[in-house]
Amino acid sequence: MILKLCRFETQGSVGIGAVKDHRIAPLQVDDVRTLDDLIALDNDHRNLILANLDQREASIQLHDVRLLSPIVRPGKYLGIGLNYADHAAEAANLGLNKPNKQTWFNKQTSCISGPFDPVLRGNTVQLDYEVELGVVIGAVAKNVSVERARDYVFGYFVANDVSARDFQFHSPTITIGKSFDTHGPIGPWIVTADEIADPHALQLRCLVNGATRQEANTRDMIANIWEQIAYLSSAFTLYPGDLLATGTPSGVGVAMSPQQFLQPGDVVRCEIEGVGTIENRVE
Amino acid sequence: MILKLCRFETQGSVGIGAVKDHRIAPLQVDDVRTLDDLIALDNDHRNLILANLDQREASIQLHDVRLLSPIVRPGKYLGIGLNYADHAAEAANLGLNKPNKQTWFNKQTSCISGPFDPVLRGNTVQLDYEVELGVVIGAVAKNVSVERARDYVFGYFVANDVSARDFQFHSPTITIGKSFDTHGPIGPWIVTADEIADPHALQLRCLVNGATRQEANTRDMIANIWEQIAYLSSAFTLYPGDLLATGTPSGVGVAMSPQQFLQPGDVVRCEIEGVGTIENRVE
Repeated sequence: MILKLCRFETQGSVGIGAVKDHRIAPLQVDDVRTLDDLIALDNDHRNLILANLDQREASIQLHDVRLLSPIVRPGKYLGIGLNYADHAAEAANLGLNKPNKQTWFNKQTSCISGPFDPVLRGNTVQLDYEVELGVVIGAVAKNVSVERARDYVFGYFVANDVSARDFQFHSPTITIGKSFDTHGPIGPWIVTADEIADPHALQLRCLVNGATRQEANTRDMIANIWEQIAYLSSAFTLYPGDLLATGTPSGVGVAMSPQQFLQPGDVVRCEIEGVGTIENRVE
Repeated sequence: MILKLCRFETQGSVGIGAVKDHRIAPLQVDDVRTLDDLIALDNDHRNLILANLDQREASIQLHDVRLLSPIVRPGKYLGIGLNYADHAAEAANLGLNKPNKQTWFNKQTSCISGPFDPVLRGNTVQLDYEVELGVVIGAVAKNVSVERARDYVFGYFVANDVSARDFQFHSPTITIGKSFDTHGPIGPWIVTADEIADPHALQLRCLVNGATRQEANTRDMIANIWEQIAYLSSAFTLYPGDLLATGTPSGVGVAMSPQQFLQPGDVVRCEIEGVGTIENRVE
């Protein structure tokens, strides 16, 4: 069962559903108001609902809705730093050394925003973009092996790990600069895991005002998704709905020469093969 | 209105209420099942409920209940590193340099546990304790000045910022080693802000198996609570129910010579003047 699950607003009300071509089949089940609710259900219940949804008529035109962040309030939104070799190399020029282990930080969940929502600059003067493949956890994961990690993924999305570089580099823990309000656009939907034969063979790209800034393939990750889930779950439990941003390739503005930070009016487009596209204008 | 707000389990059911001497006045309001729910209400509604609660009979014996974590699932649980001068000095001996700005990390909210719950060691061999004054945010806070920050505090609690030092030092962002399951005991209740005349004049202490390891006063914080709220809210919005752990003084096991890590059977007691005591046994 292959689905693109979205959350949307139309005519003043908010719903969830499945995208089929250019239409949405709405999901209308009591007590399942959000995809967070859906993903939190046990597997059998969830699969039953998704099977029904798969049969439903796609009655809503996609162009009539505003797509919202597919997940509203996950327990965790974690990002991994320096996880593409070419990005680690450009970061080394900025004085950042590659650590021995996977380096994770939180994007505060309050930064999450919709796939086409504006990015507000806030109190940074060094606003930057990072295209990343996002992962939605689908099952309670503790001490999961690399070999079994795939079973714990519900689906994938496109993330822009928007970064306030001045705040990021204030302190070694970097989380403050990763978490400004509106700096977590995700979407445009969640593609269920079945749809992605190999999440480590996807082209990803970031464009600013139409010019390509980042272009790579997820095969270039240093720690792959299975290793990421194994490492994290060796420390603590991942829960259904938790989000991971799996790292960004080279080409970020802070590493350009001269440095190029985002300015109001700039439009950032993040694309991942087989997953989708999000686009956010800086305000 | 001065209250100690708790969450508790008794005879198989979970409730919330106010502690008065050695009894609890239960709070029974539809749609307010947790203190998270209560704190999320608008100020007038919340104050009305608290005023009623203040008048209610304390009908439940405290020794008949198990106290639970007062907050269940905050949006954020943030901790500040190296925020007492004596702790920063002992950390410098471990090769940690004091950063220029406040250094924040996340304790994943999934690590939160009750004030008397066991601490599970998990996959660390360097388990350590940190007594800290905890802050509960009480109002939506964005770009709050130091002068106004006090108005955004709902109350205070005792935190043990349990730390897996090996995982903490794996990477500069440290969050993984701060977030093991059960490594976030908080409580024993939330003392409302009115009750604490000056949160920067409280003795705090941590004992392991009855021996004092940490003893200090919150006046020794480098960045005080108002500066913490001002800094964080200059980057992103703090929401009601968000939790802050405001730093630990010297005396942690990793800085002792020789180093002393917690072992199964050890009992860690964290006390803060005017707030309360939590005690957790290592398993």
